[in-house]
Amino acid sequence: VSSESSEVRARAEAARNAGRRLAALSGEERAGLLRAMAEAIEAPSVRDRVLAANREDVAAARAEAAQGMLAEALVQRLGLDAAKLAGLAEGLRQLATHDDLVGRITLRRELSEGLVLERVSTPLGVLAVVFESRPEALVQIAGLAVRSGNAAILKGGREAARSNQALADALREALRSCDVDPAAITLLSGREEVQALLAQDDLVDLVVARGSSGFVASVRATTRIPVMSHAAGVCHLYLHESAVPALAAAVAVDGKCTYPAACNSIETLLWDRGAEPAFDACMKALEAAGVELRGCTHSRARHPGMKEATEADWTTEYGALVLSVRRVEGLEEALGHIARHGSRHTEAIVAADNVAAERFLQEVDAASVFWNVSTRFADGYRFGLGAEVGVSTDKLHARGPVGVDGLLSYRWLLRGQGQLTTDYGPQKGRFTHRDLPRP
Amino acid sequence: VSSESSEVRARAEAARNAGRRLAALSGEERAGLLRAMAEAIEAPSVRDRVLAANREDVAAARAEAAQGMLAEALVQRLGLDAAKLAGLAEGLRQLATHDDLVGRITLRRELSEGLVLERVSTPLGVLAVVFESRPEALVQIAGLAVRSGNAAILKGGREAARSNQALADALREALRSCDVDPAAITLLSGREEVQALLAQDDLVDLVVARGSSGFVASVRATTRIPVMSHAAGVCHLYLHESAVPALAAAVAVDGKCTYPAACNSIETLLWDRGAEPAFDACMKALEAAGVELRGCTHSRARHPGMKEATEADWTTEYGALVLSVRRVEGLEEALGHIARHGSRHTEAIVAADNVAAERFLQEVDAASVFWNVSTRFADGYRFGLGAEVGVSTDKLHARGPVGVDGLLSYRWLLRGQGQLTTDYGPQKGRFTHRDLPRP
Repeated sequence: VSSESSEVRARAEAARNAGRRLAALSGEERAGLLRAMAEAIEAPSVRDRVLAANREDVAAARAEAAQGMLAEALVQRLGLDAAKLAGLAEGLRQLATHDDLVGRITLRRELSEGLVLERVSTPLGVLAVVFESRPEALVQIAGLAVRSGNAAILKGGREAARSNQALADALREALRSCDVDPAAITLLSGREEVQALLAQDDLVDLVVARGSSGFVASVRATTRIPVMSHAAGVCHLYLHESAVPALAAAVAVDGKCTYPAACNSIETLLWDRGAEPAFDACMKALEAAGVELRGCTHSRARHPGMKEATEADWTTEYGALVLSVRRVEGLEEALGHIARHGSRHTEAIVAADNVAAERFLQEVDAASVFWNVSTRFADGYRFGLGAEVGVSTDKLHARGPVGVDGLLSYRWLLRGQGQLTTDYGPQKGRFTHRDLPRP
Repeated sequence: VSSESSEVRARAEAARNAGRRLAALSGEERAGLLRAMAEAIEAPSVRDRVLAANREDVAAARAEAAQGMLAEALVQRLGLDAAKLAGLAEGLRQLATHDDLVGRITLRRELSEGLVLERVSTPLGVLAVVFESRPEALVQIAGLAVRSGNAAILKGGREAARSNQALADALREALRSCDVDPAAITLLSGREEVQALLAQDDLVDLVVARGSSGFVASVRATTRIPVMSHAAGVCHLYLHESAVPALAAAVAVDGKCTYPAACNSIETLLWDRGAEPAFDACMKALEAAGVELRGCTHSRARHPGMKEATEADWTTEYGALVLSVRRVEGLEEALGHIARHGSRHTEAIVAADNVAAERFLQEVDAASVFWNVSTRFADGYRFGLGAEVGVSTDKLHARGPVGVDGLLSYRWLLRGQGQLTTDYGPQKGRFTHRDLPRP
């Protein structure tokens, strides 16, 4: 462990130095890097290498799945093809067109004559990102790191190890071709390496932990580095009595069935007494989509086919085609249920009534609160952030889908001419505190 | 402990509810509250009560100081008078004139036709603030909490207990007179209560810890709530070879002598080979001000009177009229010394040379980086933030002096018309991601 630890420390130091140089590039230079990364993963030779590595990963995973050692859903998420690679390249190119947010002056203020304060955005430094099996995530995270001027040390799922290595090799080669130290994108390979990395709190500025809530909790417990993560995704869809049935059914199916394993999928449907038509339409559509339903007494009275929900169902993130269903006596009770059982991730209301919808939007304490659209829209790409490095259910720093903005800090720069703090005070000089136009 | 804990929990719940209502007020209503708070502490009857309580605190502290149980500097910081109270009232009134930052739309984006995303600033909820002995801090923190729509649970220094109680009573009475639940400003009185509060991670959103680094570390170790603090304040003043002697000496004395116990005071002076005139001027002024100097070999060769600095001196926050002094071979070595020994709090350069100064401003990784002014300007009031709830040396969320901005989070609100995530993709709908004007 000790030699592993010093090896990981050396790599973290190299990443830190590479990040410093990445941060010193101009925005246009970072955009050029992103374009070079896009070109790299589309080059036929690289594409063939990545897809061959991916076929090996998929074959190995399929063999494990056949023995029941791996979920079939995981195998499906693992697969890459030429179209997916082209999509990833396109994502990097789009990120290159985004405004560069590094070195932006976000406040400019004259404190007194000749004494000017600026608040300037700055990269965090080194990100450690531990992510699940989809190899697409590696490219998206590396892209966000470069756009934000941060070095990234990545560790993907074991099942995608060969795909991730091939992709990381290609991206690092692209950095090298632009005269940027490839240590800015560093790939770790084992759990022991991750443990060693989490101990480098003087070298790593932020850990992004993506995975099960158990995994996230274990990361938080073992490091002093700030951790960005979502603890859980217990998201609700609430049908107000004014909900339009067809819209409610479509939004419910979108929220539950398009990607049940995603943290922004719904786990509980709440429906108003008075929303029976919308509730009926949802039940019909969800049953047709193969969703297992677990209901409260009132829900079961109306739809006798469903199982009985227990208290535990209201706090369970199924991550599968299962949905708990509960009737409430109006908006107030729905808000109470969400406050008690929600995970502050994403909550949605279906309502034709503006007043009810706006009250829901104002009062729910969650990272994302939606009206007449499904919780699945809570996503960095869909929000226009280019991609997402993760989703945060914390309130501090970044909340919800985290893009470039969440990977930046700032510094206060003050330029003066020898002014002294003792020059100011009653019967002395006064601060002007005049905000100035920003360049 | 159990009854104490449930008592503290009940108070935290009351604060949470009060905070929710504070957050729902309009900006103008919160400004009115601040004006009522200002009026309250200036009312003659309150003023007399506060000053009487403060005289008792000061007398008790003076008795302890006489027995060597308390530092004399602490006694001096404890004192209040009518002028100080007027200054605090004026600070609250200024805060009332600041723009209200709660509920501000900081991003507005059309994702596709009829699907509009907003990012809206929101109070964190409940702040727990543990602060040192100056009773002024209570009023300033309460003011920032009200301006930002947060409830505050406060615990001040034991020595200021009577003063704090009298001030808190006055502020709570002002809330009551505006029909706001006084639980929005809650004062705790003992260490056991603080310990119980730090366990309420479902009720408290942020802990602000102000005090010694040992105290801050102990708070961090005992709570799962995010903690905002400065770990240490080892700040440097660097004299570039182009430094103007008179300016250097004035800035050095301002940085060291105006408030040696403050975290933004300098602990080390670095001077270039070539900056001898500026160095000499600094030594003369600092010695005249009674500063104990501890130098490297080169510094001592030039100023034989000073003690020899040991390796420990480069990382020590003296908090007293002591300064370590080191000669460096130019900007590069100065940057290296600061990167190795600094605490990322505040760093300053004195230079006539623009290029050197700008390089220092760009490359030093610290919350505040200054040119030709003293590190003592790193302060929320001087920065025009109204006041400061504390200073952060973390990179995430808020950095440096923390005002209202650092006490806010945000939520993502999405309003749609039944759009589905499956409507978008290759050969399907495209996101427009068009930023819209903000109201």
